[in-house]
Amino acid sequence: MLTEKEIIQIFASKLGIANLDDVALLGRGIVFKVDMLVASTDVPHGMAPWQVARKSVVSCVSDLAAKGVQPHAAMISLGLPKNCTRPYVEGLANGFAGASKEFGVRMVGGDTNEASGLVIDCSMIGFASKMPTRTGAKPGDVVVISGTFGLTPAGLEILMRDAKGAGAFRKYAVESVLEPKPRQRFGIALAKFFSSSIDSSDGLAISLYELAGQSGVNIVIDIVPAADGVEKFAQENGLDAHELVFHGGEEYEIVATIPKSRLNRAISAAKKSGIALHIIGRVQRGPGDVFVGKKLLENKGYVHFDMR
Amino acid sequence: MLTEKEIIQIFASKLGIANLDDVALLGRGIVFKVDMLVASTDVPHGMAPWQVARKSVVSCVSDLAAKGVQPHAAMISLGLPKNCTRPYVEGLANGFAGASKEFGVRMVGGDTNEASGLVIDCSMIGFASKMPTRTGAKPGDVVVISGTFGLTPAGLEILMRDAKGAGAFRKYAVESVLEPKPRQRFGIALAKFFSSSIDSSDGLAISLYELAGQSGVNIVIDIVPAADGVEKFAQENGLDAHELVFHGGEEYEIVATIPKSRLNRAISAAKKSGIALHIIGRVQRGPGDVFVGKKLLENKGYVHFDMR
Repeated sequence: MLTEKEIIQIFASKLGIANLDDVALLGRGIVFKVDMLVASTDVPHGMAPWQVARKSVVSCVSDLAAKGVQPHAAMISLGLPKNCTRPYVEGLANGFAGASKEFGVRMVGGDTNEASGLVIDCSMIGFASKMPTRTGAKPGDVVVISGTFGLTPAGLEILMRDAKGAGAFRKYAVESVLEPKPRQRFGIALAKFFSSSIDSSDGLAISLYELAGQSGVNIVIDIVPAADGVEKFAQENGLDAHELVFHGGEEYEIVATIPKSRLNRAISAAKKSGIALHIIGRVQRGPGDVFVGKKLLENKGYVHFDMR
Repeated sequence: MLTEKEIIQIFASKLGIANLDDVALLGRGIVFKVDMLVASTDVPHGMAPWQVARKSVVSCVSDLAAKGVQPHAAMISLGLPKNCTRPYVEGLANGFAGASKEFGVRMVGGDTNEASGLVIDCSMIGFASKMPTRTGAKPGDVVVISGTFGLTPAGLEILMRDAKGAGAFRKYAVESVLEPKPRQRFGIALAKFFSSSIDSSDGLAISLYELAGQSGVNIVIDIVPAADGVEKFAQENGLDAHELVFHGGEEYEIVATIPKSRLNRAISAAKKSGIALHIIGRVQRGPGDVFVGKKLLENKGYVHFDMR
């Protein structure tokens, strides 16, 4: 069996795509992005049809946000199971309509098909004159994130494996799974200061390794960005908080690097926009490794729950 | 169970999309198109992986061609079965690479996912300052097509139901299924003369009804555009040639209307480019009906074979 990396490698080599970033900047300043959601692997229990539709849009919005790009227009390709009902289709349509307003993106068309299970492919176009890549991190840069980690993986444990969670923590954790919030304002306000960036939907560790590897530098994390309550939740459920924070996933945060020379301006811009800018580490010379303090971080991505 | 029309209606009403054309012209002259191929319903027996990949690109290229648009860039979203092998993935990649050259479209990226069966969603961008719609046919216009009909449906009968076909007819019929040729040159040379246009991949009858209905006119077909050998093939297999020509499908021809005032210029342009321009009928006042001679044509689309 082939891994996703091997599959991408085969395509990249046959198609002559050197840059494996998942957002493409074309001529005329057009930014192009696609993302496919497959219900059997990407949809946790308890997600309503409108939330599934919204999530498929969030994936694209989040990747564009990491590049500082506001989406302009979207097309939706749907694979629908044969027996899908009117309320189900209306639920999906409501989710797309809501996402269109929430993220300021026009839905301009699409395609519908019969499939064995729900598949949603969202294509998006935006505009930019330039974009941060995954290859631009330089020694001396600082590593920043748009928010903390571990809450969504905790929510997945609650939804998928009946982990125990109390009161507000449970509510926020589950909400972060069912209604993820991409960091549009963060990315659009700050991308001009980034030397490299990525969205963290595959997990924090894999995102850091991606920036480090593609840029040919090491990253050192000085402050573990655990969300409030994650340690306690992990203890109560016999889980590892480090795992939840670094090797979770489905979190639509932005992970970026900022050169020291632009840091003060970035901090001012964040303050002005009322955005929290978390500095968690720094870029060093090196072959592409990531350390948490002095310890090498495991290069392990988000492993999909078997959702159905 | 909902029909595709009902599903599209629900989406159009929730999303406020009035124009149900499947190619969108955005600001800055950007043309945006998506098309999803689901192997279980869209891939006939005997199709190699590279042909499947190519076909998914053809669907988009053909729709753009009907609007006179040369594709500029494409993104591919893949849903792949868990057990897919390296030769299979390489076959797909070869198909995309070949299609990229054949149709002059850059493949700029994509997304890979695990799915229960193969799903390919192709998104394309091109450029145009204006485009023919489905709503512009006027009484007095002539109806033109880029090629004849019935060969591909015959090929599907051969591949899927073991229909008998002789020598060259069999070869061309099967080839037209496995390696469909979208009419890029036709569309790009002639679209500026069209008052309305569509590609015929859902079948000739449904395409004519779509133009008639959306434009609020009747269409009268004077010359039945049957491909050579289709009548004979139908007779030999106890099939109805009229069915094969009008209610088949999977044919990537262009169906368009041209105002009389532009017809001479269109004919000259076709001659100059070495393209066959077939005039098969005319547009009349009416409520959206289509006649073949004096007989009302059945408004019936292509019904997918159960492919797997």
